[in-house]
Formats: sequence, C-alpha cells, structure tokens
Amino acid sequence: MPRSLQTPTAHEKDIHDPLATLRTKFHIPADTIYFDGNSLGLLSETVQTRVADTMAEQWGNDVITSWNKHNWINLPLTVGDKIARLIGAPEGTTLCCDSTSLNLFKVLCAALDINHGRTEVLSTEDNFPTDLYMVQGLQQLLGERCTLRLVPEQELLAAINENTAAVLATEVNFRTGRKLPLAELSAKAKAQGALTIVDLAHSAGAFPVALLQHDIDFAIGCTYKYLNAGPGAPAFLYVAPKHLESSRKPMQPLFGWLGHAEPFAFSVDYAPAKGIRQFLTGTPPILALAAVDAALDIFADIDMADIRKKSIGLSEYWLACMADEGLLEIMPSISPDKAEERGSQLAFEHEHAYAICQALIAEGIIADFRAPNYLRIGFSALYNTYGEVQQAVSSLATIMHERRYENEAFQQRNTVT
Amino acid sequence: MPRSLQTPTAHEKDIHDPLATLRTKFHIPADTIYFDGNSLGLLSETVQTRVADTMAEQWGNDVITSWNKHNWINLPLTVGDKIARLIGAPEGTTLCCDSTSLNLFKVLCAALDINHGRTEVLSTEDNFPTDLYMVQGLQQLLGERCTLRLVPEQELLAAINENTAAVLATEVNFRTGRKLPLAELSAKAKAQGALTIVDLAHSAGAFPVALLQHDIDFAIGCTYKYLNAGPGAPAFLYVAPKHLESSRKPMQPLFGWLGHAEPFAFSVDYAPAKGIRQFLTGTPPILALAAVDAALDIFADIDMADIRKKSIGLSEYWLACMADEGLLEIMPSISPDKAEERGSQLAFEHEHAYAICQALIAEGIIADFRAPNYLRIGFSALYNTYGEVQQAVSSLATIMHERRYENEAFQQRNTVT
Repeated sequence: MPRSLQTPTAHEKDIHDPLATLRTKFHIPADTIYFDGNSLGLLSETVQTRVADTMAEQWGNDVITSWNKHNWINLPLTVGDKIARLIGAPEGTTLCCDSTSLNLFKVLCAALDINHGRTEVLSTEDNFPTDLYMVQGLQQLLGERCTLRLVPEQELLAAINENTAAVLATEVNFRTGRKLPLAELSAKAKAQGALTIVDLAHSAGAFPVALLQHDIDFAIGCTYKYLNAGPGAPAFLYVAPKHLESSRKPMQPLFGWLGHAEPFAFSVDYAPAKGIRQFLTGTPPILALAAVDAALDIFADIDMADIRKKSIGLSEYWLACMADEGLLEIMPSISPDKAEERGSQLAFEHEHAYAICQALIAEGIIADFRAPNYLRIGFSALYNTYGEVQQAVSSLATIMHERRYENEAFQQRNTVT
Repeated sequence: MPRSLQTPTAHEKDIHDPLATLRTKFHIPADTIYFDGNSLGLLSETVQTRVADTMAEQWGNDVITSWNKHNWINLPLTVGDKIARLIGAPEGTTLCCDSTSLNLFKVLCAALDINHGRTEVLSTEDNFPTDLYMVQGLQQLLGERCTLRLVPEQELLAAINENTAAVLATEVNFRTGRKLPLAELSAKAKAQGALTIVDLAHSAGAFPVALLQHDIDFAIGCTYKYLNAGPGAPAFLYVAPKHLESSRKPMQPLFGWLGHAEPFAFSVDYAPAKGIRQFLTGTPPILALAAVDAALDIFADIDMADIRKKSIGLSEYWLACMADEGLLEIMPSISPDKAEERGSQLAFEHEHAYAICQALIAEGIIADFRAPNYLRIGFSALYNTYGEVQQAVSSLATIMHERRYENEAFQQRNTVT
C-alpha cells in the first residue's frame, strides 16, 4: 500500500493548490493512488447521487412523464451544451450521445459529403485504432468514395494536400501524450480546402480547447476519461455552426427517429431536425446521460486554465521526482519535453512496462500499460495531489531497483490491459 | 386518483395469478395504475440495487480493474446471452449494445452484403418510423445499392419476391398491436431467397419468441419496454449462427475497436472478432448494461409461456370490461380480435384520443397516445393486475360519459406524446 509520507515540497505544493478541495467530491478508493484518469475517471458523489435520484425519482416515480417533466427528451442537447463550454464551442453545436466511434462515423460521412469530389481521409499511423477502424469500415461500405492515408504524426501537417477531404486527428496521442497544434492544423487544412475532424478523447476536461476559435469543422470525444462520467459513458460530437447553418439535406446517414424534425409525428419519411439535433439517432440512454450531466456540474465553476496549470504542475513534478530517483535513464519518457506540447499524461518506455505496471498496481498505484511497452501515467487536476506523485514515483523507484518486474505473477496478461 | 374498489371477478383472477408475487419486485408509483410498459417499463428494486452497486463497488472501488475483475469487457455478450434465452436464440448469437436504430444499421448492411446483387429492403408502411428512417439513411449513403419498398402490412408476405434482399418487419405493430406470423414470413422469404430482419421491440419480454426455430436471419430490439431496463437502455441484436459461421470478412461496417479480434493489441488494421462480437463498436456503457443485466435476472425463473398467458388474460379482461361499459362502440379497438394475433397491447381509436389519454393520466392512469388518434394500452404480465384493469376501464368509462376530453387543459400537446 502507498506510504503516507510526503516530502516537504509535495506538501507545500498541495497546500497552495487552489483546486485542492475538489478532491473531496470524488470517491478515492481505499489505499489507492489513482493515475489512470485518462482511461477511466473516478466516481464522484455528485454522479452517484444524480444517478440514484434519476432512477428513484424520475424513472421510478414519474416514469414515462419524465420525458417532458424532467426534459429527458432534450438531455443530449443540454448535456452537450455543458460540454461545449469546456471545448470552446458555442451553444447548440454539441451533442452528448452514442459512442465516440459512432459519432466519428456520423461526422466522417458529413465531411465527405460536404467535401464531395475528394475522397481522402488523412490521419496518423498512431492515431487511436478505433478512429482508423471507423474509416476502414466506411471504406468497406463506400469503396473508392472513401480512402484512408496514414502518415507519421510529425508529417501530418505537411501531408495535407489538395486531395484531402478531411484530416482526422486525435489532439493528444494516446500513447505519447503529444498534443497537436490545432491552430496550425486548422490553418493548413483550410489552405488546402480540407476539413478537420478532431478527436478530443484526451482533451475534454484536461485543458482548455478552442474549437470555434481555431475553426475546427468537426470534433468528437469521450466523457469517461477526464470528465469522470463513468465506464463507457455516452460520447459527444461537435459540428461547426457554419456547417449546421448551411446544410440543406440530412448531414449524416444514421437517420434515427430522434434526429427527425418531428419525431412524434411518426411520419414515414425522414426529415432532419434543424441544427445539431439531426445528429441524434435512437432513444437516448437517460441513466448514463444523467451521470454525464452530473459529472459536468463539477466543472461549472472551474476555469479550464486552472486545470491546465495544475496538470502541468503535477506532470513536471512527476518528471522531477523521477529525475531525482535516477529513473529517466532506465525508463525514458516518450512524451514531449515541453509541458505545453503535452496533454495531461506522461508515458515511459521499458521492455518490462507491463510487469512494472502490474507491480505498481500491487502497491495500490493505478497506472496503465499500452502496447507494445509503455507505462502511461494520467494526471487529473480534479483529484490528484503532489503528495501522490511523490509517493508513486518513490514506489516506482523501489520496484525498479528491486527488479520486481521479473516476478512472474506480474507478467501474466489480463484480457484488458 | 384510481379507486381501490375491485370487482369480485378481478379479485378472483388476481388471487389465482401465478405471477402475482412478481409485482412486489417493482416500484409501483404512488396512486398510479401503469399501462405504459410497452413504452417504458417500471423500475425494479433489482435494477436499482445493481446500478447503485456497480457505481459504488465496481466503478467507485475497483475502478479500471473492473474491466477484468467484474468482466465488464464481456458484459455485452453475457447480457446478450440472457436476452437470447427469451427470444429463442442460442448462446453467442445476441449482443446487448448501442440503440435499436444503430443495431438495425449494422444488420441491414450485413443483409445487403450477404444478399449482394439484390438491393431491395421490403417493409411495411406503418413500421415504426426509426426502422424506415435507418433504411432511408443507408439509401442516402449507398445510392442505388439500397432501395426501400413499402407495402401495407397485410400485403407484406405476398409482396416478397425475387428482388427482395431483406424483409424488415417489426413483429408487433406499434400502433395496432398486430403480431405478424414469423414462421410464415420466414418461409415466404426463404422461398424467394430473401433474408429476414425482425424488430422485436414489442416482443422481447412480452411473449415467447423462437428466432432459431423460425430460421430468422437477423433481429434487433429494445430493452426498455417489456424488459424494464430503464429509459433508453442499450438495445440488442441477433445474428443467425449460420451467418456468423460462414462470414469471411467483416459483416458490418461500423468497425469499432471492441469488435476487433484483438482490441488491446491496438493494431492499425481492423480485423473482425469471430462470431457475434464483431457487431460491437465502441466502449460499452457499463452502468446502463448493468441495469439491463439486473432487469433480465427477474426473468431467470419465469417461463415465457406463463407471461404470454397472463398478458392475454389481462387484455381479454380489458376488452370484456370495456364491452360491459359500452365503450367499444364509441372508441373501437384497432387491434386484432383474436388474442393470438396480438402482442401485449391494445389500441383504441377516437378523435379525442389525445385528450382522453391526458384525462386518464390526470386520474393516475398512465396509458399513451399515438398519432393520429389512438389510445394505446400496454400490459406487463410482471406487474399489472386484473384489479388495475377493472379500475382503469371504470375510470375510462367515467371520462367518456362525462366527456372530460372536451376540457381544454387535456388538449394541450406536450413535446413527447
């Protein structure tokens, strides 16, 4: 179990942390230091209470009348607007619905349709696989009307050309934590007549995002990482106002009844709702949306700039502690050196990264492993402390010096890694 | 509020109801008689407790390790297997995931691909709109590779011909409650080389379904009606074993990472998982799936034949009570006369059906309205009683005799009807 000792430095930093009280809103598992908020954010009292109330009061007591009485019918939009505030999007441009993969399918179709004549989706070789798979799936369906070109991440901007229909980029690389420069990406795409689709999975809730300011065309993202909305919680999608305003036919092909202009007229022919609502598909999952809604309320009074500041503080302190312990030589960072070029995570390379991660977990320190050989540390400014950083790195040092990763028990692979 | 009086007949029927004790598992809203289980089933203690535990124990305490420890990763399959038991499907053929609309998109693509060379999806004019919209969406995407032909429900079987790629039918009509003969539908389709896609939205949990026996190719359905899994709960999809076994390439184009053969290898190229798992897309919504899982546990020891028997008992008694009150002349049934030709609902036509429904709701009797002028009554064998039927019809008689539907307050339309 993690020791409760803390260096004076860590203690000092925690005392002066303006976000420190937020930690009390979360359920910190007993004897655990949690640095995996970039995979699954922690449960908060706010979410727990809201979901329980939504079940007991809304579903339990008001049942079907809740679609009106508790405005369930508009929940994907009202929750979407709360997400919008965190990603620099205006009201009425963001929905909370379906999964990131499915939302990507919708905006891919929309982008290829707007930029018809071009077929190429340009992305990076180490983009998160599900994003690439969704393009490959669309390719299977559309044949030559959709092509996928992959380039190394560092060549992405230079690779955009007059054939590119859409650039598909995850802002923060899920392995390295490298943060792409959205302003430059957008400018380069615009100059070549390409549209931009940005996956904000590791961005939303982690630092300020400025979609409208950077003139991004489409964005998608998930709510179960830095937004702490629960395992597999509904995802989000954003469509730039200019596209919503100029559309004259359905923008995407998943014509669910809740994207219809008049769902309760039950007419035979599809007619898309105006604006972002046409990106809705089936009946929204209310319990899950209530969890997202509550999780977002925690961000209501927070300036995302403060989140970013603390996130950088935690990660820089992690690196300093590792340097002090002499660990950076034996498990080098694969993340950018400059804090402003990173998201809210660090990753380290070691041939025994999997076993090292398991050894940490055995000590109550939750990080995660990403193939082929990376140890990934995610920092949540809402609940992580400098003291935790110091303790976790100290445990990591012990594990490395004692070569605990040679223990066979730590080398056995789980289904989910 | 509903009166608590009960005729001796109703009382007698309730005493002899072998499923009577199941009602205690559900949260019956105070002063309410609920005949809208075909729109949104009631909350049970089982679901409430499971969701609370999944939040507190699994997400809250075990956090990310729950993907292995609590087998979250396989939940869409294990819940799918529980649904399979209710719809006459073998293990490993049914998934609980996404929405009914999205699952329809997947199986539509699979059917058109298997039956390549044919383009026609044949359905009924009064199929539930979202089913028709999804075909129209696919049509927008694929152009002439997908066409939709609609015929009146009574002409469906005769309309299947050698051009039909797939017949898309909802087993129980959402307005009239008419139950299509799946055995005949399947036989006719097979004879013409057409595949069958059946929407079980109003079937699953309402009566026995025999998908494998009837050689149905694909099925989809929802869990928030007769399965009581909560508003907008994840839907299901079924693929016949013969198709799963013979597939040599990805069967559907929504290539999410959890449908990959090795999702945690994070490889660049999509390779479908074997069997039904390839119909998975993004990360599954665990809280919502836990609700479905628990809701299905209520069915574990129940014979679906008993559910069907009580469902028919309740609806026949409803009709008898209406006949006694002389109501069938003024608001005739649009449902089939023969109980075996109906699902678990009745519907009545009246020009003031909307206001009548509102007047019932004002009495604590929840039914629903469907455009243009139908009052719809859904029967759940798990929690409805004969006493409730008697009281509801008695209140309906009062409303009709006093012409309360002329009250302006009852004529104002809500967003969701």
